[in-house]
Amino acid sequence: MSPSPVTGANPLRDALDRRLPRIAGPSGLVIFGVTGDLSRKKLMPAVYDLANRGLLPPGFSLVGFARREWADEDFAQVVHDAVKEHSRTPFREEVWQQLAQGMRFVQGSFDDDASFESLRDTIDELNRAQGTGGNFAFYLSVPPGSFPVVIQQLKKHGLADQKDGSWRRAVIEKPFGHDLKSAEELNSLVHEVFQPEQVFRIDHYLGKETVQNILALRFANQMFEPLWNRSYVDHVQITMAEDIGIGGRAGYYDGIGAARDVIQNHLLQLLALTAMEEPASFDADALAAEKTKVLGAVRLPSDLGASTVRAQYTAGWQGGAKAVGYLEEEGIDQSSRTDTYAAIKLEIDNRRWAGVPFYLRTGKRLGRRVTEIAVVFQRAPHSPFGHTATEELGQNAMVIRVQPDEGMTVRFGSKVPGTSMEIRDVSMDFAYGESFTESSPEAYERLILDVLLGDANLFPRTEEVELSWKILDPIEQFWDTEGAPAQYPAGTWGPAEADEMLARDGRSWRRP
Amino acid sequence: MSPSPVTGANPLRDALDRRLPRIAGPSGLVIFGVTGDLSRKKLMPAVYDLANRGLLPPGFSLVGFARREWADEDFAQVVHDAVKEHSRTPFREEVWQQLAQGMRFVQGSFDDDASFESLRDTIDELNRAQGTGGNFAFYLSVPPGSFPVVIQQLKKHGLADQKDGSWRRAVIEKPFGHDLKSAEELNSLVHEVFQPEQVFRIDHYLGKETVQNILALRFANQMFEPLWNRSYVDHVQITMAEDIGIGGRAGYYDGIGAARDVIQNHLLQLLALTAMEEPASFDADALAAEKTKVLGAVRLPSDLGASTVRAQYTAGWQGGAKAVGYLEEEGIDQSSRTDTYAAIKLEIDNRRWAGVPFYLRTGKRLGRRVTEIAVVFQRAPHSPFGHTATEELGQNAMVIRVQPDEGMTVRFGSKVPGTSMEIRDVSMDFAYGESFTESSPEAYERLILDVLLGDANLFPRTEEVELSWKILDPIEQFWDTEGAPAQYPAGTWGPAEADEMLARDGRSWRRP
Repeated sequence: MSPSPVTGANPLRDALDRRLPRIAGPSGLVIFGVTGDLSRKKLMPAVYDLANRGLLPPGFSLVGFARREWADEDFAQVVHDAVKEHSRTPFREEVWQQLAQGMRFVQGSFDDDASFESLRDTIDELNRAQGTGGNFAFYLSVPPGSFPVVIQQLKKHGLADQKDGSWRRAVIEKPFGHDLKSAEELNSLVHEVFQPEQVFRIDHYLGKETVQNILALRFANQMFEPLWNRSYVDHVQITMAEDIGIGGRAGYYDGIGAARDVIQNHLLQLLALTAMEEPASFDADALAAEKTKVLGAVRLPSDLGASTVRAQYTAGWQGGAKAVGYLEEEGIDQSSRTDTYAAIKLEIDNRRWAGVPFYLRTGKRLGRRVTEIAVVFQRAPHSPFGHTATEELGQNAMVIRVQPDEGMTVRFGSKVPGTSMEIRDVSMDFAYGESFTESSPEAYERLILDVLLGDANLFPRTEEVELSWKILDPIEQFWDTEGAPAQYPAGTWGPAEADEMLARDGRSWRRP
Repeated sequence: MSPSPVTGANPLRDALDRRLPRIAGPSGLVIFGVTGDLSRKKLMPAVYDLANRGLLPPGFSLVGFARREWADEDFAQVVHDAVKEHSRTPFREEVWQQLAQGMRFVQGSFDDDASFESLRDTIDELNRAQGTGGNFAFYLSVPPGSFPVVIQQLKKHGLADQKDGSWRRAVIEKPFGHDLKSAEELNSLVHEVFQPEQVFRIDHYLGKETVQNILALRFANQMFEPLWNRSYVDHVQITMAEDIGIGGRAGYYDGIGAARDVIQNHLLQLLALTAMEEPASFDADALAAEKTKVLGAVRLPSDLGASTVRAQYTAGWQGGAKAVGYLEEEGIDQSSRTDTYAAIKLEIDNRRWAGVPFYLRTGKRLGRRVTEIAVVFQRAPHSPFGHTATEELGQNAMVIRVQPDEGMTVRFGSKVPGTSMEIRDVSMDFAYGESFTESSPEAYERLILDVLLGDANLFPRTEEVELSWKILDPIEQFWDTEGAPAQYPAGTWGPAEADEMLARDGRSWRRP
């Protein structure tokens, strides 16, 4: 594509913007850890859904790599079952048949050179048989401990080499380390093998329609951005609440906790999208530059004791059923201090946001499952109405509902019908489901397609990951010096300490 | 009441603001022209509804004045029937019985001194029997030609005198003149007899909840006012569309026309409320000062031919029925040039609005009945999204729906679900009916109560009326020098000339 002589538009931006479907060119996807839950519930269905929507090339190939003693047919059967169970779009036999032709399974363990040789042969064979053109993405759906060996094996067996204009890409699932140091180590390991533009870090939140819409709302409209600063915003609350406990994930979760599991990636990314300046364009570099800039301006309050809270759920009731406390969960040590709830207050040291606190919270076993960004505005600086007229009037707020019930709510004051002037909060609502006939693709659909297209907009970069750890590290270190976490009964909205934290600022958490 | 030492609040403001029901003190209402439609359909039901809501004093009295040969009982029966047919609240016998005790009828014509003596006697009798305390409002629901004689008779017979702390008030229905000169004459006549604070001009639009809410929305909230100026607003459209024709009102309407009937009062008042600066408080003086200020800043474009349109409806179809043209209506002269549609463009010469056009339009036999204020925002000054992404994106707009479907709609752009970035208009909505359990009082309920309370907030003052004629007079004079009006078929949204008027500015009318 050459730049348009008429608009001077840049070809990359046009490519991203075009409203024609974005269709992947010749390519294939290799999944390491293909027998895991993520693969079965998200990745396989996403691949099928993309194929079903006509967004994959005819010869698209899917290679599974795992220890199981499977033949290609066994693997195809597993994919088939996963697709039937979890796909978003209807099952169509002809789509399936086409897709199944490119399915291969490579049996082996990560430290086994022969398996990677076999993988290379399989890729060569697919290039010939399916016309994948040497373009392959390697999806590392593996435990963090296995990252180094897989990366090294890809290098050793030449699988990362981009020959004759073909591409190779690495897709990495979180966690991207467990602190700044480990993240830097992981990043330097990855970048020994792959160039930055070959690496795609999955934060599936960024694949959600509502998250992408934050930027559309802010920058395609004229009526929100003028309000989006310290002159009008009182504070911002970013919440990701889960109603479930840790389920069977004790081994992964204990020692990691809520802040590392959610705040470091999802919530700080939401903060970055909410707070960043307008990028000059929407190409990945321009976007990453703004996210990096705002994350770099995040400041921790000096008194971490007063501006952070961590807690563990205790036994309680949820959804009419009794729920055990975190320390009673199977596989959790009685002396565990892992946070299942974390709330932190951050400020952003720039002209737009100076003095505006961003409150982030996440937790398991909370009142209900909800993720939202609430921009809470200041009260009007002066009210020509008397104080009794506005007694029941809260602060204006704009709430972006990331999930569920995707959409947006604006809360403002309106006159109560009647013969006196009384003003009360009302709200207006926009719901995706009601406004669009188009249904939302799953985050993984979007993200896998982006990997195949080489579109890095929705993937956090090295710098973003490291800056996020830089924000979180001092908090985790502070918590390590503290005693036991606070407590909250399962099914409630978190510990009293979190309410007190906001009360000290004269504010309160939303009950979403 | 003395000013509060704590808040320094002024007592008038507190009185207006208190959320306790505002209840009228001892008083009565005299209606001239009590046999007319307005009286039967609006005034009598409003009085009953106020009584039913407990907002009238126990001895409240209602006096009818007309030429009919009625006894008090006949009058009470007429009120009874009107209430049963038109009241908003349920009929309750005990409320009715209480109200009926204060009903009197005075038979007479406006030029008959004896009738006004009889009216004075009736009022004296009510003061004794019903405890009305000498407090009476005179509602002039009479043709404009009868204003002078009624006003003079009230003076002549001492009915306007406020003795011993009692009050007398005059309530005047539009039209307040038919041009600046006649309005000035009427005002000077009225003010020979009544002090300015005794005069209440009814513009029933100002009694509507949605109209009062304009001020609540603008000034009780923080998130709208920052956008409410030339930096962000592209233009404002104020529409009052009727689907009906002139009905049986040929005698009144012909020679008056849409601009005098609607723009001079309702639409310019809506403009004033939409565009005015924030008043220091909500007392009537402060409010009137701001409305007067902004109406005084309204500027007519120099080229009236390019910025005004008047038109007449021709035969067409409406609601599945054939509708005759204006010139075929009964009682209309074939050569009439009266406007049944008028559209004008105004600008406001102040810092807030310089360069922002306000387009006002009104008409009969339009597509449907709707009154709304649409604040249309500029496009974002820069879009980081490519041009194809925003091809289907319109301008942001905030639409206050005055009637029907009272509420507010905000239109903005949102990402269309899918794997590309495409942004399309969506809207969010606030509906009175859904947000409040309180039902809205009728405009006349509110306004009659305000008259009895002496609360002048919602009544245009002399200066506002005269300024509005000052705006309209040059337009009417220009139209008088023009040929025949443009034409539009009944059931459409007005003449092509009105569309062309906006097209010249690169804009278009909303289809509400």
